[in-house]
Amino acid sequence: MILEKYLSQKGQFLENNVDLSAGTIAWGLKAKKLVKENPDFINATIGTATEDDGKLMVLPTLYDELQQLTGDQLLAYANMRGQHAFVQAWNRDTLESYPAELRKKTEELSTLPVTACGGLTGGLMLTSQVFFDLGDKLLAPNSRWGNVDNVFFKNQQLHEVPYKLVDQNGNLSLSDLIDNLQSLEKTEKKIGIYLNFPNNPSGISPTLDQVKELQETLETITVPTVLLLDDAYENYCYEDNIVNHSIFPYLVGLNDNVLAVKIDGASKRYCAYGARLGTMTVGFGLEKDENEKSEIRELMVKSARTNSSSAPRGIQEALTNVLVDEKKKTNIQKEKARNLSILSRRYKLIKKLGEETESNILKPVKFNSGFFGYYLIKNQQSATEISSKLLEKGLGTVPFVNISNGLNGIRVAYCSIREEKIEQAIDLLYSQI
Amino acid sequence: MILEKYLSQKGQFLENNVDLSAGTIAWGLKAKKLVKENPDFINATIGTATEDDGKLMVLPTLYDELQQLTGDQLLAYANMRGQHAFVQAWNRDTLESYPAELRKKTEELSTLPVTACGGLTGGLMLTSQVFFDLGDKLLAPNSRWGNVDNVFFKNQQLHEVPYKLVDQNGNLSLSDLIDNLQSLEKTEKKIGIYLNFPNNPSGISPTLDQVKELQETLETITVPTVLLLDDAYENYCYEDNIVNHSIFPYLVGLNDNVLAVKIDGASKRYCAYGARLGTMTVGFGLEKDENEKSEIRELMVKSARTNSSSAPRGIQEALTNVLVDEKKKTNIQKEKARNLSILSRRYKLIKKLGEETESNILKPVKFNSGFFGYYLIKNQQSATEISSKLLEKGLGTVPFVNISNGLNGIRVAYCSIREEKIEQAIDLLYSQI
Repeated sequence: MILEKYLSQKGQFLENNVDLSAGTIAWGLKAKKLVKENPDFINATIGTATEDDGKLMVLPTLYDELQQLTGDQLLAYANMRGQHAFVQAWNRDTLESYPAELRKKTEELSTLPVTACGGLTGGLMLTSQVFFDLGDKLLAPNSRWGNVDNVFFKNQQLHEVPYKLVDQNGNLSLSDLIDNLQSLEKTEKKIGIYLNFPNNPSGISPTLDQVKELQETLETITVPTVLLLDDAYENYCYEDNIVNHSIFPYLVGLNDNVLAVKIDGASKRYCAYGARLGTMTVGFGLEKDENEKSEIRELMVKSARTNSSSAPRGIQEALTNVLVDEKKKTNIQKEKARNLSILSRRYKLIKKLGEETESNILKPVKFNSGFFGYYLIKNQQSATEISSKLLEKGLGTVPFVNISNGLNGIRVAYCSIREEKIEQAIDLLYSQI
Repeated sequence: MILEKYLSQKGQFLENNVDLSAGTIAWGLKAKKLVKENPDFINATIGTATEDDGKLMVLPTLYDELQQLTGDQLLAYANMRGQHAFVQAWNRDTLESYPAELRKKTEELSTLPVTACGGLTGGLMLTSQVFFDLGDKLLAPNSRWGNVDNVFFKNQQLHEVPYKLVDQNGNLSLSDLIDNLQSLEKTEKKIGIYLNFPNNPSGISPTLDQVKELQETLETITVPTVLLLDDAYENYCYEDNIVNHSIFPYLVGLNDNVLAVKIDGASKRYCAYGARLGTMTVGFGLEKDENEKSEIRELMVKSARTNSSSAPRGIQEALTNVLVDEKKKTNIQKEKARNLSILSRRYKLIKKLGEETESNILKPVKFNSGFFGYYLIKNQQSATEISSKLLEKGLGTVPFVNISNGLNGIRVAYCSIREEKIEQAIDLLYSQI
């Protein structure tokens, strides 16, 4: 770096450790280029849900609402806490995504949300700085998306303690997390855990029994433990035997040593990726009075205010208008259900094809939710090399390799392949190995 | 704080040191409430330009363009560097805001912009973390807006070295900055300088001679010096004898020890405050080749990527469409000129009234640009108390008090008072003292 003399330690660290040419975005760019050259190219790199014609899956009710905002609604500053009506509406929307019997308890045990500029990533960042210092230990799954590393381990320079979320048979397991947690409990003064369900890249979500296992461990934990829930893909679930909503309600009210922060946003919940609106909701281990709740919520606002002032306004106004109007709300729910059923069909097909295809080398994990299928490589080949070869053969995928954890696999984003192309995509995938 | 055991050092520091009930936003909320109760109340707290009817000043060409975006343009993720066409168009737009003879040199000596999620604040934050470590010294003017403290001195915990930008006679002076710079040069390994013209809150901009004084000092500086230019209000200038554009072109090409980062955005330049789009452009002291420029630009992208992933998409698309279309560009320039002339009329009136009004206590600074008039208090009364009394009398203002620098004054946002109310506002202001 020619300008080394000007850089901070963090600037130098980012320069040396962040690789912008790796990861989803870079593989997406490669695929995008190839699509232009070859219309038959299948681009399964894109982590956003698209229609069969390749256009972004948009919720028409939200889109129409955005088109009708006044200048003030679209372009004035938003409240630094989030527009008041938006925060209320979003909170209700979130609570309604839980089973009815969990709502009241969860509401009592948590703050109102605070908006985060920068979407889910912004929410992770703003939460991280409030709770973790450089070098603090954060338990992070072997299966995770690239910006988890960028935010926590490169920008914030937390100390990674890996846990195996996906085992070599492709099953989700929380036992390694629990083991690690119990051993950190003996040595640490504070513990952080990053949880992301449905998981990116593995497309995997836990069963209620698995969540209960984690609950039991947390109930008796004796060290302050902060849970960061990355709920980007919440509610995109396709199987009956899994928890089909955020696990946040199961992680509040456990123990006064456990604080859970739910980080979600409009990106996937309302197909508004580029709007950059996230929210952060803090959940408690024991009931708090309104003053105490407000105090911790204000601290989250301080984090947001000192980083990015306030979040984008227009998307808040449009979502509020939709969520407080019964008719519009019904419409957008129908639109979401329609999108979910398209994704569910793609999921069922890609799942079936993977299970039917014999291979000594590729093993699909037991994905059951989210936007992706994930295929472990059982021999010594590198996922990166395979993804490179697949590009040449006409299929864009993203390799997710975590050397420290032995995770080596390929992500196929069925959220952005049309149903009739899925068989061809799977043929290409397996033929390459 | 009930949850102290969970907090990071930064979380604890933010909790103890950030006061969300102070500052522009809090005074704005008080005034907003009073406007509802009393339609004659004059709210001069709002730091956004408004029409005479109180609505946000919006540029119709941009607004129309936003209404016409497709779902993909509005809601898909943006490129993490900024949409390619946007970055090009914004760069051209910025260069064209300089006098013709400065453009080529400035372009050669700087990178392309990188988008910053979170508007100007986001840009300050993303730049700060690249160049400054906790405890590094940053020269900051006595006259500055609240989030400068929040970002640099609270979130980033830099060490403030104050300089007197506005003297007790209300004149802009760079001599204290220059003196401080020269003494830091003897003791420090790196120096940071925050510069903000037109200045918030004082509404003051330098003459070319004043900028030349600073140039001369920087030309011979022997210690790496990073200049952070907060160009939020660039080009809102109402006098002939001042530099009526960003001073960035005067700060590049001086010396290989000087790096200048221009931080600007759509918030004020295109009246799109709530869109949260900032940009960062790095300028060099000596010419760099394209690889070197790209290397430093990529580092700014790493800073953005690890904090907020990418910036909002829709505003980038809409601005690009406007700026690359000659007809739309002409239209928006006319709309900007119309707004500037409204602000200029308000400026001239409030300036004249302040100069005509005798007072042993209030002294308007020599404001000449931006959105605000700023009035120093010459006796021992506190600006905060006076602003509180003014609220009761029917005028909303924001006190800006900097105890460490002896700055004690009141900001009157004429950007958001209609012309016919200005006389009444000034009457109220002076009658209270």
